[in-house]
Amino acid sequence: MKLVPPKTSKPKKPVTPGPRDERGVLQARILGAARQEFATHGWAGTTIRAVARAADVDPALVYHYFGSKEDLLDAATTPPAKWLESVAAAWATPRAELGPTLVRTMLAAWTDDEIGPVLRAVLLTAAHDDRTRERLRMVVERSLIGESTLGTDEGDRLRRSGLVASQLMGFAMLRYVWKIEPVASMSEEDVVAAVAPNIQRYIEADLSGA
Amino acid sequence: MKLVPPKTSKPKKPVTPGPRDERGVLQARILGAARQEFATHGWAGTTIRAVARAADVDPALVYHYFGSKEDLLDAATTPPAKWLESVAAAWATPRAELGPTLVRTMLAAWTDDEIGPVLRAVLLTAAHDDRTRERLRMVVERSLIGESTLGTDEGDRLRRSGLVASQLMGFAMLRYVWKIEPVASMSEEDVVAAVAPNIQRYIEADLSGA
Repeated sequence: MKLVPPKTSKPKKPVTPGPRDERGVLQARILGAARQEFATHGWAGTTIRAVARAADVDPALVYHYFGSKEDLLDAATTPPAKWLESVAAAWATPRAELGPTLVRTMLAAWTDDEIGPVLRAVLLTAAHDDRTRERLRMVVERSLIGESTLGTDEGDRLRRSGLVASQLMGFAMLRYVWKIEPVASMSEEDVVAAVAPNIQRYIEADLSGA
Repeated sequence: MKLVPPKTSKPKKPVTPGPRDERGVLQARILGAARQEFATHGWAGTTIRAVARAADVDPALVYHYFGSKEDLLDAATTPPAKWLESVAAAWATPRAELGPTLVRTMLAAWTDDEIGPVLRAVLLTAAHDDRTRERLRMVVERSLIGESTLGTDEGDRLRRSGLVASQLMGFAMLRYVWKIEPVASMSEEDVVAAVAPNIQRYIEADLSGA
């Protein structure tokens, strides 16, 4: 089985993917580097070469594992299945418990070694251009908003879910990305006590101001 | 009066700043281009040359008006005085009216031709690296949080202000930067009705969950 594209004639770094275990390690290293590069330089400013350099592998290996820059962006900014599952599980809790459950799910996701870096990459990469902004919209719509069962009709559901997302994402930005104190170091229980009732209001209160 | 640095020997585009009126126009054009470049490419990825190209002026003119890349970033991401004044005025309204007033101030700022592009540039540039994140932290702390008079002590004031900022900035991100529907096209009155009570809770409610 030929693992290295034939055009790569002078590899500077080992390109043999090696045994199955090592393959996972290398892929994770490449994805970690890709998240950092896309977040810092955006879609246009990121090259496979720079990602390979940051991951300390040959560019051919990046092409071998991920095919193209487009596929690499997809892989780097697709939230792990366990995140989608945790969001789906959160939406399935009884409505009276949804506020605190969604806040706890957000906190757990951002501090998870696997999910946190992906969410961070999605938010930061979305800052750059319309193409990556579209990825963010998909992630938000397919998970946070897509799973929601709120409201009386589709328009009401989307409005309530969008408001929930605005608070959860704004809070995550301040706490985990911009690290503005004291929000960045509030205890989990303090966050739930402070934020969950506001989420709960978006879920079930009359929002018309009547 | 010599307006062009002597080292610029071969200007490709006119570098004479011209009459006073034109000077303001050119500076605004350079700042607009700088905001776009910093937002898209970050601090590290932005060059004076690229800003000059985007603004269709000679790089010497950018140096002449703004001195250095550092000063250009400052000028491009310093909110206009009228924004700081409107935030200060908002914080001075009676506490019972603060929620709706802060929401209206946020909406007015983002749709203002002068303030909106600066806030957008600050948020997007902050996505890139620690240096520009520090600018965002300053803008948030000096305006939104710095002007606030909430809470019973300094810790309480900062926590409440941070929570207010998390909702207002999260909402602005969804509505104006990521343009996620239907949040992006809700009427101003619907936004105030939906969001202001949540801001009001952060301002004056017991947040301890007791």
